[in-house]
Order: sequence, then C-alpha cells, then structure tokens
Amino acid sequence: MNLNHYLKEKKKAVDLFLKHYITSKKNQKDCPPHLVKAMKYALMAGGKRVRPILCIASYEAVGGTSDNILPAATALELIHTYSLIHDDLPAMDDDDFRRNQPTTHKAFGEAAAILAGDALLTDAFAIISEAEAAPKTLINVIKELSFGSGPGGMVGGQAVDIMLEGKRANKKELHYIHTHKTGALIRASVRIGAIMGTASPAKLKALTEFGEKIGLAFQVIDDILDITGTKEELGKSTGADNERGKNTYPSIFGLDSSKDIAEQLINESVSALTIFNHKAEALAEIARYVLSRRN
Amino acid sequence: MNLNHYLKEKKKAVDLFLKHYITSKKNQKDCPPHLVKAMKYALMAGGKRVRPILCIASYEAVGGTSDNILPAATALELIHTYSLIHDDLPAMDDDDFRRNQPTTHKAFGEAAAILAGDALLTDAFAIISEAEAAPKTLINVIKELSFGSGPGGMVGGQAVDIMLEGKRANKKELHYIHTHKTGALIRASVRIGAIMGTASPAKLKALTEFGEKIGLAFQVIDDILDITGTKEELGKSTGADNERGKNTYPSIFGLDSSKDIAEQLINESVSALTIFNHKAEALAEIARYVLSRRN
Repeated sequence: MNLNHYLKEKKKAVDLFLKHYITSKKNQKDCPPHLVKAMKYALMAGGKRVRPILCIASYEAVGGTSDNILPAATALELIHTYSLIHDDLPAMDDDDFRRNQPTTHKAFGEAAAILAGDALLTDAFAIISEAEAAPKTLINVIKELSFGSGPGGMVGGQAVDIMLEGKRANKKELHYIHTHKTGALIRASVRIGAIMGTASPAKLKALTEFGEKIGLAFQVIDDILDITGTKEELGKSTGADNERGKNTYPSIFGLDSSKDIAEQLINESVSALTIFNHKAEALAEIARYVLSRRN
Repeated sequence: MNLNHYLKEKKKAVDLFLKHYITSKKNQKDCPPHLVKAMKYALMAGGKRVRPILCIASYEAVGGTSDNILPAATALELIHTYSLIHDDLPAMDDDDFRRNQPTTHKAFGEAAAILAGDALLTDAFAIISEAEAAPKTLINVIKELSFGSGPGGMVGGQAVDIMLEGKRANKKELHYIHTHKTGALIRASVRIGAIMGTASPAKLKALTEFGEKIGLAFQVIDDILDITGTKEELGKSTGADNERGKNTYPSIFGLDSSKDIAEQLINESVSALTIFNHKAEALAEIARYVLSRRN
C-alpha cells in the first residue's frame, strides 16, 4: 500500500467533515461568531489528524467500510484540539506558538481560548450523538471517549504532568504521565474504530494492545523530537520541555535509550496486529511512520 | 405538598449519588488524588442542586418513578459545577469566593482548576453513558445536554457575556446572554427529565416552555440578588456585576422593572404546566420558590 496516499485521502475526508462541522456552527445563529472563529482557528491549523486516521484505519481493519465512522473519528480531533488549547494556556504550559501560528489564547485572548476549548470538548459528544449507528454502539463510543479523555485518562495525565513539573518523576510516574496524557486518547481512537466496526472480542483486544503501544511510543517520540527537531519542522519551540523542567523519556532514560524504547514499542504494536493479515496493513504502516516522523 | 421536605429529600438523593461518584474516582487508581480533591472541593461545596432537582421533578411530572433518573440528573450538576470553576478563573470573571469558600483556583491553583473543570465536563457524559435506560433514550439525553451546555447554549452565553463586559448591551444581546448563559442548561435539565420519562410530544413541549421561562427568570433574579442580597446570603461578593461592567437586567431595565419581569416569567412558567394537573405540583412550587429565593 501507498501510505502517503492513504494518509492524504483520510486526512481529506476528516478535514471535509471538520469544515462541515464548523460551517454549520457559523450558520447557527445561537453560536457567537467570535467563539466559532476561535474554535475554527485551533481546529483548522493544519493538524495531521493522527487520531481520526487511526480510528478509521482500525475500523477498516475489522471490516468497516462506511463513512459513518467520520463523526466518531473527528470527535477525537475535537477532543485533541481542546486539550491543546487548554494545555497552551499561561496557567498550564504557557506556550505562544503551535503549528507555526500563535496559540489560541495569544490570538483571541485567554477567556475565548478557555471557552473555545470547553465548546470543542462538549461538541465532541454532540457530534457522536448525531452519528449514524446503533444507539448501543454510540453509547459504547461515548463511554470509551469520556474514559480515555477524562480524569482517569488524558486529563489525569495532564494533571500529574503539571504537578511534577520541576520535580524529578520516578519511572512509574513518568509511565503514568505518558500513557495517560497522550496514550489514553490514542488507545481510545483505535478502540473506537473497532467498536464502530463491531469488532470481535479477540480483535478488540489485539487493537487495544496496538493502541496502547503506539500511544506510548507517540509521546516518547514527541519527547525525543523536542530535543532533536527544529522549530520549523515542529511548528513550535524546541527544547521547551527541558526549559520547563518537564519529565520526559530522554530526561529520565537518556536520548539513545529513549529511541530504543520507542522502536521496541512500535515493533510490539505491529506484532499485536498479526491476527488481522493484510486488513491491518494501514495500521502497521502508520506505526512505522510514527517512529520515523519528524513533526 | 411540602416543598421544603421535597427539596431536602431530592437534594439528599443527588448528594448521595455525587458522593458515590467522587468516591469511586478516589478509589480509581488512574485518577490523580490531587485532581479528584479539586473536583470534590467544587462539587461538594453545598450547592442547592437546582438543576438536578428540576430534572427529577420533570421526570416525575411525566410519570417517572425510578432512581434511574439520578445519573442524568447529577450529570447536570457536574456541568454546572465545571462552568462555575471556569467562570471564576482570573481570565474570566476573576472571582475569589463562591459558596462562602475560596474559589477552586484560589484553593488549588489555576492549572488544577482548569483541569478539574475539564474532568467534570467529560465525566458528565461518562455518567450518562453508564446509566440504566434504553440506549436511544441516553443518546437523546446526551444530545440535549451537549446542545444545552455547548457553544449554542451555555458556553455561547458565557462568551457573549464576557465579550460585552464593560460595553452596554442592547436588549436583544442581554436576552441572548441570559437565555444562554443560565437558561439553556436549566431548559435542558427540565427536558432531560422529560426525555428520561419518555414524555409525549405535548408534554415535552409544555415542559420546554416551563424550562425556558424559569431558566430566564433564574438569571434575572440572580442579577437582582447581586444588588439586593448580602454576602452572607449569597456566599460570594455582591455588587460584583456592576463593578465588572456586566450587562444585567437591572442595569438595562432598572431594579423594579426587573422584578416585574421575573414575576411575570414565573407566572408564565407555572401556566405552561396546566396540562399536568397535580403531577407537576413540585415544578410549580419550585418556580414560586425561585422567585422568592434569597440565595
């Protein structure tokens, strides 16, 4: 398969759905234009749509073929985007640049940024509630999304990350931060694709393992890129983790060991897919791409 | 009926459910204790539980009798609490006191307050996804809650409120702020009770009208109490709206006219209930109580 073509095609479908979503907000007279503008600014800043694409690829791996996966897939991007907006706030990571443009609070002010984040988080659930699928399936998707992104998932990881800033985390704490801050939503993305495709328990289990491994690897590689990447490649300041006293894999394990860990996790994630044969080819290719990514 | 007894009994049931919810978070090893503490602090600060009680009373008005209403009812309190935490932040209304105690960011820091709000918002949907009801009903509840609290509802109202601070709003803008900032979630509370009780279209329509009227009245009375109430009664600073240049009913219509408007809205809300006979007695009593409340 041609991975570049695959990623491009799926990103296009997701972006189209996102555009449709934000346009419908614009036309809804009850949504204040200023708020919608801030939401759109963050949402359409050129993300790679990794989580939606993982969700779609997982859905396809279990035999799903319909566009009905798009609402759930893009809801994941709304959650991811809201988390970036809130994480960038002065009280949190205090970042001025993201994806080569000023962060949302720099462009629209802090109040609008907080509210745009809240709006995107809320709308993620609105979008799923309007998707085409059996209500029982949608409830399971909502369960998965709220658990993966809530206090036992992404928000929990972010809370510990902030709390331990400037202190040296132990390996267990570092593992908690990474598997939750980034891992939990990526795991949920893969599982939601499987749930929408009514996967068998065995396939759901295999995809869960894939999601866990690739989710952790994703954050380890993020940490590595913060040291080895350039500002142009990443669209944000590099070396920021170190400056801020963040606990990262390189800061605890060293750069070389972190690269080894990432590579091993990616190999394990691909191994978890053996029961799928060629149907999970896209997922395996995405895993290898995650390891080699430069931004 | 004895309204005080009714309110006390329902508040007790809601508080019990909330306690169960927060205790289960405490025992869930994936939820950071510091984050759960901040969530609990805001949630258990002694709110009147107006939204959950309206939801339960509406459910009972259409014939509902089971405790299965509690998850949906308390999800409304999670949304309300998150909105207070975020609204109190320095970048928003910058309030130091709420319910006679320091606001969440004063007690736990801004980052923890932002994340506690995000966690409560997310968990509102998690709680509903685990409730006992037909999946189709739960999807309709999630639709209602996300629309009422999202950018076309509560968050939209808050965005316009903040944007027009210090500027004089016209009557249309003031109406938008009040029907959305406060009205939309109260309307949703009443409608969710009706949906959970599988109300007929005619009854849902009547309850929607009730919810709209009482929701707007609630915020008008809030504005009035900010002028006429004492700090002890309200548990927060009074006169803060005026100091901050907020657009309120008294600031646009004057205090006496605002009282008349509130009274008329409450009368209209009670009139909307005529098709229910005695089954909506509690709702009518609550409406009258809202008009006479001192905090």
